[in-house]
Amino acid sequence: MQTSKVFFDVVMSLDGFIAPEGMDLAHANDPEYKQWMNKWMALQQWVFRQKFFRENLHLGEGGETGQDNRMMEETFQRTSVSIMGKNMFNGGEQFWPEEAPFHTPVFVLTDQIRNPWQRPGDTTFYFVNDGIESALHQAREVAGNGDIRIAGGANCIQQYLNAGLIDEFTIHYVPVFFGHGTSLFAHMNPEIKVKMRETIPSKEVVHITYEVEKK
Amino acid sequence: MQTSKVFFDVVMSLDGFIAPEGMDLAHANDPEYKQWMNKWMALQQWVFRQKFFRENLHLGEGGETGQDNRMMEETFQRTSVSIMGKNMFNGGEQFWPEEAPFHTPVFVLTDQIRNPWQRPGDTTFYFVNDGIESALHQAREVAGNGDIRIAGGANCIQQYLNAGLIDEFTIHYVPVFFGHGTSLFAHMNPEIKVKMRETIPSKEVVHITYEVEKK
Repeated sequence: MQTSKVFFDVVMSLDGFIAPEGMDLAHANDPEYKQWMNKWMALQQWVFRQKFFRENLHLGEGGETGQDNRMMEETFQRTSVSIMGKNMFNGGEQFWPEEAPFHTPVFVLTDQIRNPWQRPGDTTFYFVNDGIESALHQAREVAGNGDIRIAGGANCIQQYLNAGLIDEFTIHYVPVFFGHGTSLFAHMNPEIKVKMRETIPSKEVVHITYEVEKK
Repeated sequence: MQTSKVFFDVVMSLDGFIAPEGMDLAHANDPEYKQWMNKWMALQQWVFRQKFFRENLHLGEGGETGQDNRMMEETFQRTSVSIMGKNMFNGGEQFWPEEAPFHTPVFVLTDQIRNPWQRPGDTTFYFVNDGIESALHQAREVAGNGDIRIAGGANCIQQYLNAGLIDEFTIHYVPVFFGHGTSLFAHMNPEIKVKMRETIPSKEVVHITYEVEKK
């Protein structure tokens, strides 16, 4: 029996964006452009305060150890494999530390033909050129009973969700407005039915987990 | 001292819409168009089950009397005056029962010049032609210490929110996807800062109340 779940887990602004306008390869070195860095930090500041996140990215000692931290650590622990789109990979390739923060196999949806790229700390990127179902199939082969995380970005998540391939997902709702940016749910298929499973309010963030109903 | 609050309170789909595509005057009598009626009912079904709502619209006996019902009743009770945009009024004018469900003064932002329209049950619509600040000023004059509800639609809410005139708001998050529709926060000013005040999870809906930070 397949017990492995396919899930995603993202931080979203109140107006529905997971990245601000201007946060792209063209403006990666221009954090003042459209104030993208300030907006990103307003969305992610609660993440940067968590002990688990700080340790995983070697950002330094200390950090919060409450409920938010526990959730982040559990999400990391359950993830046996990740799948990501090419935009997320191209951005991350420049900005992740040498020891990329995944520590698992990562399948990258791309048109680039490239040999697997192994990083220190057990992250290996595999490049998949034949679509989302193939990437998921390859991910299942190495995931065992562990879970498969659709890491992002929004376009990649939308494709998996609209294809009915996601089992569950968590959104961390943060009370900031971006005005413009990358919308998580820009092109949803209204036939996809979900229900709420759990709501966990923290001080500054509300974490809601949804389950996708299977036909 | 001014103790009256200006607020809004809306039901939103998971992808950020407060009304589905096709729910407009042109298709009001064609509920199959883009399946707008089915989508609307999926968003609002928890509302139609509440005792308070059923009584207020004379929909019949019975209904739920739990937390969701209490919230709806409290929202009604705190509202001394409502303000709405012309699209909401034009739609409602056709579909509200003769005894319109407000039972208070309602200021309508419109370019139509029209005498006040008094309905049975103490709802009177006043037509305001000189902008959102004027409507709010007129609303404050009759609200006393009661609260002022910006009833909708999305455009009207965005205008008040972006002008810094809202004190607090509640969003009822419902796990349905519309795909297309009227986006609540399509054009937000990222300078508007909010914080979470209260999260109340119900079985099928999560109610989150936000406070707007004043400069």
